[in-house]
Amino acid sequence: MINRLIEKIQKTGAPIVVGLDPMLSYVPEHVQKAAFEEYGETLRGAAEAIWQFNKEIVDHTFDLIPAVKPQIAMYEQFGVKGLEAYKKTVDYCKSRGLVVIGDVKRGDIGSTSAAYAAGHLGKVQVGSRVYAGFDEDFATVNPYLGSDGVNPFIEVCKEEKKGLFILVKTSNPSSGEFQDRLVDGRPLYELVGEKVAEWGEAHCGDTYSYIGAVVGATYPEQGKTLRKVMPKSFILVPGYGAQGGKGKDLVHFFNEDGLGAIVNSSRGIIAAYKQEAYAKYGEAHFAEASRAAVEDMIVDIRGALEAEL
Amino acid sequence: MINRLIEKIQKTGAPIVVGLDPMLSYVPEHVQKAAFEEYGETLRGAAEAIWQFNKEIVDHTFDLIPAVKPQIAMYEQFGVKGLEAYKKTVDYCKSRGLVVIGDVKRGDIGSTSAAYAAGHLGKVQVGSRVYAGFDEDFATVNPYLGSDGVNPFIEVCKEEKKGLFILVKTSNPSSGEFQDRLVDGRPLYELVGEKVAEWGEAHCGDTYSYIGAVVGATYPEQGKTLRKVMPKSFILVPGYGAQGGKGKDLVHFFNEDGLGAIVNSSRGIIAAYKQEAYAKYGEAHFAEASRAAVEDMIVDIRGALEAEL
Repeated sequence: MINRLIEKIQKTGAPIVVGLDPMLSYVPEHVQKAAFEEYGETLRGAAEAIWQFNKEIVDHTFDLIPAVKPQIAMYEQFGVKGLEAYKKTVDYCKSRGLVVIGDVKRGDIGSTSAAYAAGHLGKVQVGSRVYAGFDEDFATVNPYLGSDGVNPFIEVCKEEKKGLFILVKTSNPSSGEFQDRLVDGRPLYELVGEKVAEWGEAHCGDTYSYIGAVVGATYPEQGKTLRKVMPKSFILVPGYGAQGGKGKDLVHFFNEDGLGAIVNSSRGIIAAYKQEAYAKYGEAHFAEASRAAVEDMIVDIRGALEAEL
Repeated sequence: MINRLIEKIQKTGAPIVVGLDPMLSYVPEHVQKAAFEEYGETLRGAAEAIWQFNKEIVDHTFDLIPAVKPQIAMYEQFGVKGLEAYKKTVDYCKSRGLVVIGDVKRGDIGSTSAAYAAGHLGKVQVGSRVYAGFDEDFATVNPYLGSDGVNPFIEVCKEEKKGLFILVKTSNPSSGEFQDRLVDGRPLYELVGEKVAEWGEAHCGDTYSYIGAVVGATYPEQGKTLRKVMPKSFILVPGYGAQGGKGKDLVHFFNEDGLGAIVNSSRGIIAAYKQEAYAKYGEAHFAEASRAAVEDMIVDIRGALEAEL
């Protein structure tokens, strides 16, 4: 799957991923109204609204981008019905040829991690038959529990040719509270990065490993260091746009081959129509605003990379 | 909710929680068969099998115990249908008067953590109406992302009078890989424990805080230290039984009032009928075996506490 992600990045010339993190407040009035008319102001109605919203954005952007990253929390908040919308979104994006990174940040111990891995990336046995639960292409994983929490995910990736992005240095203001604490004079995130590199070495695609890392756009200096610590790992970079990251801050997340990173923007794309820059599209054409925001993001990041490399 | 948990522990005299972590391989043949006859060998059939299995165990143990801890991964592996069984289990346990600890180990940043918190402990707004998604009483939370990943959960707990158990020192063999790394001469888990104590101080029930911690039964020495670091926090202790922990190892997780900890056993209870000690019940009476295992666990822990305190 890492080979496929790279191929798609090269084909689109866009090392970016659109975060499908639909708050109900991002969904235009008319989309909500149509969903509520069909299913009422219910959890099912909310799920239908975010699914229709996603679908329209995907329809307007899928040819420009290699991948999407649905944030499962935004669906899980609507309970089981929300998770149905998540599953529909995953399947639809795959049918449109997109690589799907499930931003699930799961992580547990032994057989429990194995169950999460089976549910999101692998398969389960039911009697004599075999099924895939959510079936994303990549998943994000929390490393706090150590190797025996991560290994079951790696095992499933090996079998299914899928991949992981492991949280190393997250984009939020207080990520340093534990991640930056010095261990033998070096921040904890570097040790986690070294572990990712170690796992990655053992699990390589053609040029990059399928064990990647998450490093926030909001920490460009740390990104520069971690790029060197994990030379073969793709870095998934959240925090672009709405969280403050800009193209020029991100060049050091990439390797000299122009690869090695994929930058996520969520709100900046899916709620673009709410920004002044894209207001001309209006609520009715929210997905066209998203397309324009994707185009601008590609120009910003490609420009920064071309200036640097 | 922490007050209610304590009240239930005192009433039952059992500081224990039954982990409803149903692997399909734990579910007796006849239960699987009935479910597959109704829904086929499908994800729905698997979900029905684990739900029926849970229901029978709850029916045979609810009067002995204060709480259950369903591990959501075991449901999530069966996709959306599995999560329907999770929700049914949560609701049924609550209807039987049990406190439900959702072992979800979620954790993200800002608005994403807020969405998880809303989905598991709080409510979401849909148009003019308000709904609860999964509606557990407590949830487990991963602290790797720092305060701004945890605070949204605390906010919801304040509003809904619910609670958290934050991962401090997990029960698995490689938990030390990051959690034990020394920061200024002290292991990281102690710093996380201090944070839990700090959050807990600010959010107290009558005697204990509603911000608790997870510390594995497999690390009794660390439990002893953390007990002192977080005097007002309840400790959820996994790793009893199948993972190797025994009653006498656990006394230092408790305070002198005999409270402050709640010990989880999953496989040791729900798959008791597979153990030699309870084999006499047979597969047909698996839930009676679970009841016997609960009774033995209560005797073991109560005995150890009485010998010590």
